[in-house]
Amino acid sequence: MEDSQPGFRFYPTEEELICFYLHNKLEGKREDMNRVIPVFNIYRCEPCNLPNFAGQRCLGDTEQWFFFVPREEREARGGRPNRTTGSGYWKATGSPSYVYSSSNRVIGVKKTMVFYSGKAPTGRKTKWKMNEYRAIEDEVINPSNHTVPKLRHEFSVCRVYVISGSFRAFDRRPLGTAMKEILAQQTYANGATMTEEASLAGSSYSEK
Amino acid sequence: MEDSQPGFRFYPTEEELICFYLHNKLEGKREDMNRVIPVFNIYRCEPCNLPNFAGQRCLGDTEQWFFFVPREEREARGGRPNRTTGSGYWKATGSPSYVYSSSNRVIGVKKTMVFYSGKAPTGRKTKWKMNEYRAIEDEVINPSNHTVPKLRHEFSVCRVYVISGSFRAFDRRPLGTAMKEILAQQTYANGATMTEEASLAGSSYSEK
Repeated sequence: MEDSQPGFRFYPTEEELICFYLHNKLEGKREDMNRVIPVFNIYRCEPCNLPNFAGQRCLGDTEQWFFFVPREEREARGGRPNRTTGSGYWKATGSPSYVYSSSNRVIGVKKTMVFYSGKAPTGRKTKWKMNEYRAIEDEVINPSNHTVPKLRHEFSVCRVYVISGSFRAFDRRPLGTAMKEILAQQTYANGATMTEEASLAGSSYSEK
Repeated sequence: MEDSQPGFRFYPTEEELICFYLHNKLEGKREDMNRVIPVFNIYRCEPCNLPNFAGQRCLGDTEQWFFFVPREEREARGGRPNRTTGSGYWKATGSPSYVYSSSNRVIGVKKTMVFYSGKAPTGRKTKWKMNEYRAIEDEVINPSNHTVPKLRHEFSVCRVYVISGSFRAFDRRPLGTAMKEILAQQTYANGATMTEEASLAGSSYSEK
């Protein structure tokens, strides 16, 4: 955040997110990216706590939070990933879709998830959502020199956000106040999502 | 623009735009803001040329462009503002609305306009839109020490943008391709914009 000139923030396109951030992460390059997108297993944490773990350069952002999520060992061994937290679970919504570059090349796969509070399959939908992105890279196959698209699993990059009532991102009010409420309630409630939801519902579109 | 870490850009909230940028402008403070939002009479310019006049720190942005627009003399004298360019005209859409701060205080008035190509009233709607903001300030009235809201007219701040098909700002593709198409259509509608277009198309997603 630039104190001297407000309004500058991390607002990447999907292409920037995949082609720069995720690719560099997968190649083990650019350690300094941690200040923007840290490595964090978001599934070990209640969603409402996630803003506290955002990258240093993005702390204070109130709309969306980005994380590199390493693949879990059990998923690597062919099992299902564990997306259950103390208070609820993440569940995919819709089908995964491709992400395209500005030159219309397939660069990744995107999965959208919603956080439900309670136990599956009877949890209640919350306002917390996430897009999980994995990179697709062309891999050269010898000897034919043929390339095949390959999905990279070692890291995904996740964008966590709270559903707002408005589709127009620009009209949003700074969520400062609303978020503070959410985070405050959360601290003393820790575990019971009831209060988070209530506060979220109350403040949800104060930002209109 | 931060070359080393893509994805950081000027993406202000309405509150930041009015309470920081427009207020400082009205008070004659912070000359360095010109690098973000320059003073420019946008009504003297075809909309598709406007991206070239964006603030230095925002050059290369492909989604929205911000300008401080001084009040025209004829408007100051009580006349109607002139919003006609060589190729068309700006026309208000919907009613002006209030803009609220995160603490629910009225901080401004917002008017949305669409650019039509051709002559009023038979012009054709284009994809160019704009939000014009004016600040509302509380003014102290003596001797009662009463405050009244006062609309400031000396400068407005305008956000010019191109309507995209998607409502979800994050999913947007870098507009490179779309912009080229839009601008191409405009070219043979008006002839003169060729070179700016070329430069815009070339630079549009240099920030990748």
